[in-house]
Amino acid sequence: MRYLTSGESHGPQLTVIIEGVPANLAITAEEINEEMFKRQGGYGRGRRMQIEKDAIDIVSGVRNGYTLGSPITLVVTNDDFTHWRKIMGAAPISEEEQENMKRVITKPRPGHADLVGGMKYNHRDLRNVLERSSARETAARVAVGAVSKILLKQLDIHSYSRVIEIGGVKDENEYDLETIKANVDTNDVRVINEDIAQQMRDKINEAKKAGDSVGGVVQTIVEGLPVGIGSYVQYDRKLDGRIAQGVVSINAFKGVSFGAGFTAASKPGSEIQDEILYDATTGYYRGSNNLGGFEGGMSNGMPIIVNGVMKPIPTLYKPLNSVDINSKESFKASIERSDSCAVPAASVVAENVVAFEIARAVLEEFQSNHMEQLSAQVEQQRQLNIEF
Amino acid sequence: MRYLTSGESHGPQLTVIIEGVPANLAITAEEINEEMFKRQGGYGRGRRMQIEKDAIDIVSGVRNGYTLGSPITLVVTNDDFTHWRKIMGAAPISEEEQENMKRVITKPRPGHADLVGGMKYNHRDLRNVLERSSARETAARVAVGAVSKILLKQLDIHSYSRVIEIGGVKDENEYDLETIKANVDTNDVRVINEDIAQQMRDKINEAKKAGDSVGGVVQTIVEGLPVGIGSYVQYDRKLDGRIAQGVVSINAFKGVSFGAGFTAASKPGSEIQDEILYDATTGYYRGSNNLGGFEGGMSNGMPIIVNGVMKPIPTLYKPLNSVDINSKESFKASIERSDSCAVPAASVVAENVVAFEIARAVLEEFQSNHMEQLSAQVEQQRQLNIEF
Amino acid sequence: MRYLTSGESHGPQLTVIIEGVPANLAITAEEINEEMFKRQGGYGRGRRMQIEKDAIDIVSGVRNGYTLGSPITLVVTNDDFTHWRKIMGAAPISEEEQENMKRVITKPRPGHADLVGGMKYNHRDLRNVLERSSARETAARVAVGAVSKILLKQLDIHSYSRVIEIGGVKDENEYDLETIKANVDTNDVRVINEDIAQQMRDKINEAKKAGDSVGGVVQTIVEGLPVGIGSYVQYDRKLDGRIAQGVVSINAFKGVSFGAGFTAASKPGSEIQDEILYDATTGYYRGSNNLGGFEGGMSNGMPIIVNGVMKPIPTLYKPLNSVDINSKESFKASIERSDSCAVPAASVVAENVVAFEIARAVLEEFQSNHMEQLSAQVEQQRQLNIEF
Amino acid sequence: MRYLTSGESHGPQLTVIIEGVPANLAITAEEINEEMFKRQGGYGRGRRMQIEKDAIDIVSGVRNGYTLGSPITLVVTNDDFTHWRKIMGAAPISEEEQENMKRVITKPRPGHADLVGGMKYNHRDLRNVLERSSARETAARVAVGAVSKILLKQLDIHSYSRVIEIGGVKDENEYDLETIKANVDTNDVRVINEDIAQQMRDKINEAKKAGDSVGGVVQTIVEGLPVGIGSYVQYDRKLDGRIAQGVVSINAFKGVSFGAGFTAASKPGSEIQDEILYDATTGYYRGSNNLGGFEGGMSNGMPIIVNGVMKPIPTLYKPLNSVDINSKESFKASIERSDSCAVPAASVVAENVVAFEIARAVLEEFQSNHMEQLSAQVEQQRQLNIEF
Repeated sequence: MRYLTSGESHGPQLTVIIEGVPANLAITAEEINEEMFKRQGGYGRGRRMQIEKDAIDIVSGVRNGYTLGSPITLVVTNDDFTHWRKIMGAAPISEEEQENMKRVITKPRPGHADLVGGMKYNHRDLRNVLERSSARETAARVAVGAVSKILLKQLDIHSYSRVIEIGGVKDENEYDLETIKANVDTNDVRVINEDIAQQMRDKINEAKKAGDSVGGVVQTIVEGLPVGIGSYVQYDRKLDGRIAQGVVSINAFKGVSFGAGFTAASKPGSEIQDEILYDATTGYYRGSNNLGGFEGGMSNGMPIIVNGVMKPIPTLYKPLNSVDINSKESFKASIERSDSCAVPAASVVAENVVAFEIARAVLEEFQSNHMEQLSAQVEQQRQLNIEF
Repeated sequence: MRYLTSGESHGPQLTVIIEGVPANLAITAEEINEEMFKRQGGYGRGRRMQIEKDAIDIVSGVRNGYTLGSPITLVVTNDDFTHWRKIMGAAPISEEEQENMKRVITKPRPGHADLVGGMKYNHRDLRNVLERSSARETAARVAVGAVSKILLKQLDIHSYSRVIEIGGVKDENEYDLETIKANVDTNDVRVINEDIAQQMRDKINEAKKAGDSVGGVVQTIVEGLPVGIGSYVQYDRKLDGRIAQGVVSINAFKGVSFGAGFTAASKPGSEIQDEILYDATTGYYRGSNNLGGFEGGMSNGMPIIVNGVMKPIPTLYKPLNSVDINSKESFKASIERSDSCAVPAASVVAENVVAFEIARAVLEEFQSNHMEQLSAQVEQQRQLNIEF
Repeated sequence: MRYLTSGESHGPQLTVIIEGVPANLAITAEEINEEMFKRQGGYGRGRRMQIEKDAIDIVSGVRNGYTLGSPITLVVTNDDFTHWRKIMGAAPISEEEQENMKRVITKPRPGHADLVGGMKYNHRDLRNVLERSSARETAARVAVGAVSKILLKQLDIHSYSRVIEIGGVKDENEYDLETIKANVDTNDVRVINEDIAQQMRDKINEAKKAGDSVGGVVQTIVEGLPVGIGSYVQYDRKLDGRIAQGVVSINAFKGVSFGAGFTAASKPGSEIQDEILYDATTGYYRGSNNLGGFEGGMSNGMPIIVNGVMKPIPTLYKPLNSVDINSKESFKASIERSDSCAVPAASVVAENVVAFEIARAVLEEFQSNHMEQLSAQVEQQRQLNIEF
Repeated sequence: MRYLTSGESHGPQLTVIIEGVPANLAITAEEINEEMFKRQGGYGRGRRMQIEKDAIDIVSGVRNGYTLGSPITLVVTNDDFTHWRKIMGAAPISEEEQENMKRVITKPRPGHADLVGGMKYNHRDLRNVLERSSARETAARVAVGAVSKILLKQLDIHSYSRVIEIGGVKDENEYDLETIKANVDTNDVRVINEDIAQQMRDKINEAKKAGDSVGGVVQTIVEGLPVGIGSYVQYDRKLDGRIAQGVVSINAFKGVSFGAGFTAASKPGSEIQDEILYDATTGYYRGSNNLGGFEGGMSNGMPIIVNGVMKPIPTLYKPLNSVDINSKESFKASIERSDSCAVPAASVVAENVVAFEIARAVLEEFQSNHMEQLSAQVEQQRQLNIEF
């Protein structure tokens, strides 16, 4: 399973081609769009998010509600493109038109790809960079993740995401999986405890008033993954490593950890390792889950726990110094949009990115031309945990 | 640039083939071995580390002190193999011999790959797993990193590694690069501040006495990397994502972060973004480096800052519950070795893993058949940061 | 540079995402479509080809006539899809509708993917296979090749394609490149010599009358490729090997050869090797080109010569035995379309497939973020052939 | 399953690391060496081949006769290296030593990688190229193929190779598989019919006397491969395409074809397509095998038939013009060795290269951590051909 995404923020469409999805998976645009809409919610978003409703169309790989085994193409049409046709269209324009346009961007924003992207691709109009480096691309990644989640669900593998920190306000309570499942989608900051949720909203409001922004930490939980996905035999086959790549490649993410994560640095080994236990009906399990579901880069049957940190959104009302690439003069960096916190949405993105990496690894592990085959093999793998 | 490593912990040798190193790079076994020996040092290691001296031989790809452009093969011979020939040799043995051997391991250690690896590869003698999943493989990765570091050094790109936390004792001081360079290799916990170093040694001793172990956080710094390595155009081309994969795939690492990392979750955006400044002689630079040298998944010319967390070593004198795979009965997990802290060594491994990912990305970015070509292009890229 | 294609033959659209094209390449839909239309021409095609006019739209990666460096998306909309919406749409349909449809295909055609594809993907309606395995996918590959050709042209690398055999009628004359360039696109069988062209048309007519079909051999020539693209250092980096993969993966292609190809088996070595000569203005060159432009898997500066063989189109009026997958009874295989010879079109496809592999290798060899950089480096490589 | 090879022709050793071989495969060095020795035989080889006996040692991945699932390392030690230590050793040498050596090669041989390799890697001593581009590397590829063949054999998939043309003498008879199996390894030109074999030997002798060389065509046959290996859904997943890459990447190979191959260009479609038949005990099969076992890039259950053409060995007693890279003066190309025909050996290499590609595809298709799992799934796939 692999994919490519494409599309500029104000271009005609986002497109994603997903290759390697098994045949005979029941799937609809509606189901995918449920996930798409989740990404667009969340407390602290600016007005643009409420206006645009990103919805995908399926234009290949699915027939009468079932996958064909051939590549799946999903398209998010940008209705707003009619207003941008001149500026963002593929067709050449006359020099005169170019002159008149006057929309050339020469002021890179701190914390964005603008400046380095301009240097790398030799673009003196930085719009040529920011249209692609925009976090709007995460919509395409959620689309891929949504397909992955639907696939995993049919294999009885389920994922959830929640926010555990915003702007320094942390939810350090431990919840059982049932509580998380029941509460996470109903809360606009994706936090289980309503008191903490309110503190987070307050923090967001405070940042907003100050023309500032806040970041946070999000957590993805995947339950039901059978043992033995990933491998220790070569460094690039470790599943946790691959997930780390996925999460860090999300716009604005600056770190990832598994299970106890960075707290493992301050605890004695005897409190970190997860004891091995056995039960005749469920097979092997661990007494705790500090390792976040991984041993030797392989799933160990416990829930996968992935934490990711998102820096505060770089675009602010409280502007920062930058340099105009033509004049080389300093200026105060401009504002493109007005979200002050995108952490709840980011938790949805991270979950979907993790879901893709897990689905990819599952499909590599098993014979996976079609769902009947795949389901049977996954079931057999579950037995392994009891019979071995 | 790509590589494969091979070798079992008590087998005849570790081997690594590195493909894609430019021709005409001056390189010697001695230089590589300097890095190999660094990995074997550090306060808190058990006796085995002092006995074995891992040194590589170059058996392909280098002629009379210069690389050929053809694949480089490095071998670490295991002198101890003579004692293990019967147990670990490739040749078939008689059933009787097998019977007599009685060395079958059926007791998986918590926090290791033993149990899941046994299930996955259908090994009822768990030695078949642990011989490969052993952290001894990190010697091979340091060998790859050493070649990478020698390459980078010739391009005036330098890396350093240090320890910033052990068992909860943190070094939160900020140092300039000169101080780090001058002090890091002379200290046996790889910590700059000697007072903190002593607190860390005390922490290690304390753990050792308690039959316990401690983990920590290590930091890699890479300076001199030109702007524009990596790309935002597709998720899997972001260089920070690739580094994340590399670091998390090191044995016992449970997380990775860049620059401000997880602390970015508690700070306002105005304190996290790095302002853009310009100076006619050095070109563009940032007023701070909270983003750890990355914007949009690309190097931005500031030092690369990568933090990795290592959990405490799983093997302890204070044993944990586990289950025998034959009897399914609980037992107290056995001890294989006696390190109580491997964090200083892990900082060397992490640095080398980061060096490989950076070297790989540099070689992808430029035409890199031979060093003359590569050096000239890297120099040109450095000019870009001034002239753009 | 990499790509994924998607789309079913009667689905809403073909889509292709091409990743890794340098920024600042001048490109228009019209130029790409010129190549698309070439594929649809050629003597011996059935009526469907004349009706459908495959034209692409650019929906990402290009702005105001220039590439951005971000992924390029090309779409071929299938106007006919309105008539197929029920049968081929992605939306689920009711069981009743399914019942009424009665279009289930259970009769696999010999020489097609139908039967094996059905088994592999567990499709008992073989339409689920043939919609994707159809040679219509070659339209997407031509679109990719067209982008590649435009890129190569700007680097002064040019490709041509011609037919050298149809149904046993061969054009064994040697032509200089100028003659090939001047004549190939004006002839409806893409043959230089008009007498031979007429014999080929006769052969096609003869086959058509007999309800049969004919195959042939096509040749791609690429001139201007600098020396040293590809490498001998590892088996999978040889450029001729990669081109071989590309050509054999075209529908109905059963072989590929370079330069003298299979005739090299019957000639003495002294007649096959190409002598090395030197001239102060052009540098090194070869006295002949039996090796088709490759030495050690690398371009040697001579024109690249790639031959590919296409089997006769499997669908015929003269039906063959096959077996119904439900009844397991024998039947005479059905007819889906009526081309009797697709060799001229196949020569266009092969040229485009070769162009992609060459462009990919060129982009890997050089620093290729944008055209200015790439052009300068290619020019420098050309000097190498004189100065070395 | 993937691999990297390394080693220079006169360096200390050839090394190969093979990653992804399932655990619990019974394997010995002796079995691998049987294949290694086959490559060294054949009528028409020079004296060097008889002296060197390439034998591998297994230095990782195998324990007590069974694979571990971890990477397998095979080493071919070059006993002759003691005489080459000064010239080919990795250690730096003094400038004086360098002066004295006087072995710098500045005369590129036509038909070799020498000249282009020198340009690409900036080597003015062409030994730095030819040591790696040498056909000696095929020994490493046979080692990989030997492991692949042992794996395939346990899955009841068997491969054979034979010569069908040398220097224009062809064996165009059709043989059943039993005849091929019985005769191919006993004949020193690997030809079934002894009369034709003698004509080939005569041809080789004739070439030898004339100081010339001859090439030929070799054929690999793989029987027992289950249906559905490879896929039509994306161009780079077609198994025939991958095999084509493998074969063309063998030194001196200039083409590859499948089944009827290039003869498909001269036959009517009705004679080329293979009719589909069904039998309750064997399931689906084809009435002929012109497509060489492939439909839509997937195995169709019929024997895989791959033909490859090898050009005559470029090194001859009858020298050709070339140019000294220092003086730029013409000279008559030197002789490095004296084989006049390597086609029988090349048939062994080709078979092993094909075996690797098939094994790789089989391991991708099925869950293949260990042999018990893999065997069961392959068996199930065989049933599919009956039950579908």
